[in-house]
Amino acid sequence: MGKVICAGLGPGDPDLMSVKSDRTIRGAKHLAFFRKKGRAGQARTIVKDMLREDVIEYPMEYPVTTELRFDSDEYRQLMVDFYAEWADRLAELAQDHEVVVLCEGDPFFYGSFMHLHTRLQGRAEVEVLPAIPGMVGCWNALDTPFTWGDDVMTVLMATLPDDELVAHMDRADALVVMKTGRNMPRVRAALEQVGRLDDAWLVEKGTMPGQRVAKLADVDVDDCPYFAIVLVHGQGRRPEADT
Amino acid sequence: MGKVICAGLGPGDPDLMSVKSDRTIRGAKHLAFFRKKGRAGQARTIVKDMLREDVIEYPMEYPVTTELRFDSDEYRQLMVDFYAEWADRLAELAQDHEVVVLCEGDPFFYGSFMHLHTRLQGRAEVEVLPAIPGMVGCWNALDTPFTWGDDVMTVLMATLPDDELVAHMDRADALVVMKTGRNMPRVRAALEQVGRLDDAWLVEKGTMPGQRVAKLADVDVDDCPYFAIVLVHGQGRRPEADT
Ligand SMILES: C[S@@+](CC[C@H](N)C(=O)[O-])C[C@H]1O[C@@H](n2cnc3c(N)ncnc32)[C@H](O)[C@@H]1O
Ligand SMILES: C[S@@+](CC[C@H](N)C(=O)[O-])C[C@H]1O[C@@H](n2cnc3c(N)ncnc32)[C@H](O)[C@@H]1O
Repeated sequence: MGKVICAGLGPGDPDLMSVKSDRTIRGAKHLAFFRKKGRAGQARTIVKDMLREDVIEYPMEYPVTTELRFDSDEYRQLMVDFYAEWADRLAELAQDHEVVVLCEGDPFFYGSFMHLHTRLQGRAEVEVLPAIPGMVGCWNALDTPFTWGDDVMTVLMATLPDDELVAHMDRADALVVMKTGRNMPRVRAALEQVGRLDDAWLVEKGTMPGQRVAKLADVDVDDCPYFAIVLVHGQGRRPEADT
Repeated sequence: MGKVICAGLGPGDPDLMSVKSDRTIRGAKHLAFFRKKGRAGQARTIVKDMLREDVIEYPMEYPVTTELRFDSDEYRQLMVDFYAEWADRLAELAQDHEVVVLCEGDPFFYGSFMHLHTRLQGRAEVEVLPAIPGMVGCWNALDTPFTWGDDVMTVLMATLPDDELVAHMDRADALVVMKTGRNMPRVRAALEQVGRLDDAWLVEKGTMPGQRVAKLADVDVDDCPYFAIVLVHGQGRRPEADT
């Protein structure tokens, strides 16, 4: 009896992976990972120097990227079929083998593996190895405490409607905005509206080669990286001993 | 020239520490950590099987715990002096040595090391090693995806006033409540008020020996552990492909 192990990779620097994920990946005979067609894949790139010579790889290639609208029925159906197909293949493999599935950051925190996790229930043993979320690597890159005392921290997806972005940005102390990409201009406008644009940082490829750190206000408006996180530090509520 | 390295320990299981923290702690000659007087200290307990034989230890013992009110001037002054004194000692040690300071979870996420980090600026080289926050270990212990699609996640300290707890719990999808302890009855009441008590989990000592997982509604009202996190999963906003 085999199983599926989803190994969280952390923010990108292989040295920041857990001891357990590191050991699991180095020992993996069967290795699956998501990627865009025609790309090496970010997860696969992170582990490139860690793999066994005889590893068997299963690149799970997303069926579409930008050809279809994300909210079209066609796109939805393609994704449903894609996840169903890979859940079948992994469940079958896991009858006799241990299969390691890579996942960037922490798998249960907005991770793509969750679509397979749901579909594998009752069909294969599944173990998930937690990891440092991308946001933690990103605030570490800024080398400043992120949340203090009673700070409220809120994590937002840039894909949310404007009014929700604004309402949440207005109420929380520390802010994390993920899935930026083409929604960056809206994130910027929302931060501006609540008077927090000047406190916002952009971290692209946190802890990875090519890491970039900039004040969001200084970044060109047309510069909209997807693999980036916007951060606003909490600082309103210093603990008693520090006031 | 030495330096101060704050090594994030992650949620508690030593296997979940980063490869870098693991290596740093195993190599440490000078090791500092916070603890309550008369206790072994949670951070020190996590690393107990990893230390060099010739390690020199610096237990940083909190000057008071429950004898004084947290909001009294006396308590404040004691804490200010305590952090100032240890910042001095670490800065001096770091002139010639590498000193490793332990921190549970991720150091920049509500970590006690931040009080020293602030005070060490310009006086010693300081490096902080990120780690898996306690909450990530706790939601992993529940073995279910924590945030999906466009979910809004909010992290709250149980020490917040009632009305703020309620307002934030009402607006966010996924919820994390930390620093529970004697504020647990208020957390419970706030969750009840927004109709989310039945969806809440309590995880005590996540990933550690003695880990406990329970539905919060099933936990005795007088049962108020401090080293625990309350979690409510996000599930309102499944990504398109999963509806
Ligand atoms: C589908 S989510 C995956 C989140 C992942 N499971 C985690 O724990 O961070 C993808 C988003 O994560 C963010 N992200 C994750 N790691 C990052 C890193 N190292 N640097 C910048 N952004 C990152 C980006 O906002 C990206 O759009
Ligand atoms: C001062 S905060 C430190 C947070 C830490 N820096 C982190 O990243 O998790 C202490 C609070 O963290 C929470 N906590 C941290 N690790 C935990 C674990 N493994 N299990 C349960 N609660 C934990 C508890 O709510 C506790 O009251």
